[in-house]
Amino acid sequence: MTETTETLEHRLSRIHLALEKEQLEKVDDVLSDLEPAEVALLLESLPPAARISLWERVPGEIDGEVLLHVHDEVRGTLIDDMDHAEIVAATTGLDTTDLAEIFEDLPQQVAADMLRSMDALQRSRLQETLSFEEDSAGRLMRTDTIAVRADVSLETVRRFLRWKEAVPDNTHMLMVVDRDGRFVGVLPLARLVANDPEMAVADLMDSEVDSIKVTMKSTDVATLFQTHDLTSAPVVDESGLLLGRIIIDDIVDVIRENSEQALMNMAGLDEEEDLFAPVMPSAKRRAVWLGINLLTAFLAAWVIGRFEAALDQIVALAVLMPIVASMGGIAGSQTLTLAIRGLALGQISRTNSQWLLRKEIGIAALNGVLWSLVVAVLAVLWFDSIAIGVIIAAALVINMLAAGIAGIVIPLMLKRAGIDPALSGSVILTTVTDVVGFMSFLGLATVFLL
Amino acid sequence: MTETTETLEHRLSRIHLALEKEQLEKVDDVLSDLEPAEVALLLESLPPAARISLWERVPGEIDGEVLLHVHDEVRGTLIDDMDHAEIVAATTGLDTTDLAEIFEDLPQQVAADMLRSMDALQRSRLQETLSFEEDSAGRLMRTDTIAVRADVSLETVRRFLRWKEAVPDNTHMLMVVDRDGRFVGVLPLARLVANDPEMAVADLMDSEVDSIKVTMKSTDVATLFQTHDLTSAPVVDESGLLLGRIIIDDIVDVIRENSEQALMNMAGLDEEEDLFAPVMPSAKRRAVWLGINLLTAFLAAWVIGRFEAALDQIVALAVLMPIVASMGGIAGSQTLTLAIRGLALGQISRTNSQWLLRKEIGIAALNGVLWSLVVAVLAVLWFDSIAIGVIIAAALVINMLAAGIAGIVIPLMLKRAGIDPALSGSVILTTVTDVVGFMSFLGLATVFLL
Repeated sequence: MTETTETLEHRLSRIHLALEKEQLEKVDDVLSDLEPAEVALLLESLPPAARISLWERVPGEIDGEVLLHVHDEVRGTLIDDMDHAEIVAATTGLDTTDLAEIFEDLPQQVAADMLRSMDALQRSRLQETLSFEEDSAGRLMRTDTIAVRADVSLETVRRFLRWKEAVPDNTHMLMVVDRDGRFVGVLPLARLVANDPEMAVADLMDSEVDSIKVTMKSTDVATLFQTHDLTSAPVVDESGLLLGRIIIDDIVDVIRENSEQALMNMAGLDEEEDLFAPVMPSAKRRAVWLGINLLTAFLAAWVIGRFEAALDQIVALAVLMPIVASMGGIAGSQTLTLAIRGLALGQISRTNSQWLLRKEIGIAALNGVLWSLVVAVLAVLWFDSIAIGVIIAAALVINMLAAGIAGIVIPLMLKRAGIDPALSGSVILTTVTDVVGFMSFLGLATVFLL
Repeated sequence: MTETTETLEHRLSRIHLALEKEQLEKVDDVLSDLEPAEVALLLESLPPAARISLWERVPGEIDGEVLLHVHDEVRGTLIDDMDHAEIVAATTGLDTTDLAEIFEDLPQQVAADMLRSMDALQRSRLQETLSFEEDSAGRLMRTDTIAVRADVSLETVRRFLRWKEAVPDNTHMLMVVDRDGRFVGVLPLARLVANDPEMAVADLMDSEVDSIKVTMKSTDVATLFQTHDLTSAPVVDESGLLLGRIIIDDIVDVIRENSEQALMNMAGLDEEEDLFAPVMPSAKRRAVWLGINLLTAFLAAWVIGRFEAALDQIVALAVLMPIVASMGGIAGSQTLTLAIRGLALGQISRTNSQWLLRKEIGIAALNGVLWSLVVAVLAVLWFDSIAIGVIIAAALVINMLAAGIAGIVIPLMLKRAGIDPALSGSVILTTVTDVVGFMSFLGLATVFLL
């Protein structure tokens, strides 16, 4: 009975120091207590040099499992450090589903050799798994399903299981199939052990169970697991033939990755991004996002440039204009974030988006009026001009209304166009709030003050 | 065998239209096929009036389960619509863990009556659960654990289970305890069914299993489940006495909520926020965030105001200054988002934060130089002044370096101070990039151009 009281952060400091001081026994000490997923987290938390030092100390027998648990980008750096033989050794113990996940990250030569060294059955299984689309149920599915027939007795099932010997610990239910191998229901192990051996599987099985089509998208599978409180589910082909099972262990990863994705995408980052990637590739990737944003910044500057006459005569305008743009940006990003989460959860549809838009306009109007009064009073006190106060108040209300509308309309339009609203929504939104903010404030000033 | 092919979005449109046209049989039709968690999602996706209409059609026997699955804020609106008797009816079927989750949201009078109507055992159980801190293992724990002794045979265990009859379908393992009730290991049902009935529990049980202290934080429990691929785990008190079990169904919610939290908090929103909350309370909540941001906007305006002389003489400065501030803000928020995710995963510690800081400075320097060249060329072409090009380039490099440093240092400092970096990080970061951006650009211009 082990107890995990040490936090990752503490363990990380300990192993990092041991690596720096080259106290390799200490490193091995820490490693020996860890699960593969914990080693994966540690590797992800280390700068490149330390990461490779640690990776070389990881026992070969868990290499494959560790590779499975790291993010794609980190996996690439680890595989780069392995020679041909090490890669083959690491991946031989893995089941087909896991191997498929790693397979496409392998150097071509290694992948080809590996396919050649497999027996025909293994090879055809791997190729079948690879033939399913990424992010589909087929890729998540495990094929170590135990299936029984509905017309046999519990006693027969028990004898069968005892004869089979190796029943995976994570088997929580048996699949029940008809004579053609078509899925008809499940028998939870809890029912198998708690009932009279004379009873038939058919009397106890649960046939009201959701079966998952092998082509179903993995995010939809995750939703199904969550809404139906599943821990495992059967996977079937078009004709209902049982192909395998999906277990919740693999679904947890899908759920976590999906939730992280929106956060990372909103900052123009990839969910698989390595926190400790070297400077050069990181800088390259981020350059793209900065470049796109530069375009929108120049657009805003161009708008400001249209009002040089006003800026030339009233310097207060230059001082106050960022306030209008910034308040619009903040208000808009609140609406946008809510809409992005709602869309990700499938909670926004044609029928309720109108209501949502009206609600956000209402909020924008209330907060627009409230804060424009505050800003107006401060502006009047600062620049001793009632006209400037009135103009900034009007511009602020206009921009916050635009922000509320844009925060709903932009993600809906992007979604309809098949573009991830989290990735591009914030750039477009800021463009709107900058342009509307500068244009309304400087425009009103030009009309009424010059 | 049911098949779930209809997406939530489609179902939502269908039920929303039926509610609007008051086709109540159609509403009941949709409802009858749904799991409580799906009904909860539907309720969360409806504007207030439609939500209440739907809630009144939800069959009373799943009311309790539905209340469990909705976010806190929505739960409040649903409970407000129920009368005393309905609440009592809805919550009587729930087990103690679930009841505890709802209990604190109940009107005081109802809660008091409910406690009074319970028998002594129920009441003491509920009070015990409530005595554990929110977000601790004690609150996640279920007490329907089945425990056996290590020295008995599998046959005895089977007879015991058959005698017990009601073994929950989500039982995947039996807990093994010593004669004092202390936890010693687990016996997966898969091993129970696949082995010789003559064998003893001790021969087959897994004693290398992590037990969870009842006081452990629920986020740590979630990490443990993920890193150790658990589907259920025993909960023990200080002395190792078995108190209950935590199952993965409940952990999935913790994982999802934690991931969503960072996304929502970065926009100053609460994770429990109701997408369809009425205008007034939503506006109030968001007003606070806007007010905080207004302070920082005025700080930036004040900085700009220090340079009125420069702005008065060179209008190009007013046109270009938002570019410097905006590029810094974008670069900084990329670094900040990475740091926030890293901190949430526990991947950033004292030992690697130095490396991370150097990396981000390197990236900022590379992208700073790259984009400042682009901006400089465009500025020179636009305003026909080499001096302005040089000055904006220098200011941009300075601000992007400041952004990179602030993106790491701010979240680390907030974390150390016990403040959620996702919630306040972006406001502070924008303040830094605005102030540094305007100050460096206008300051350099004042020194070299006036």
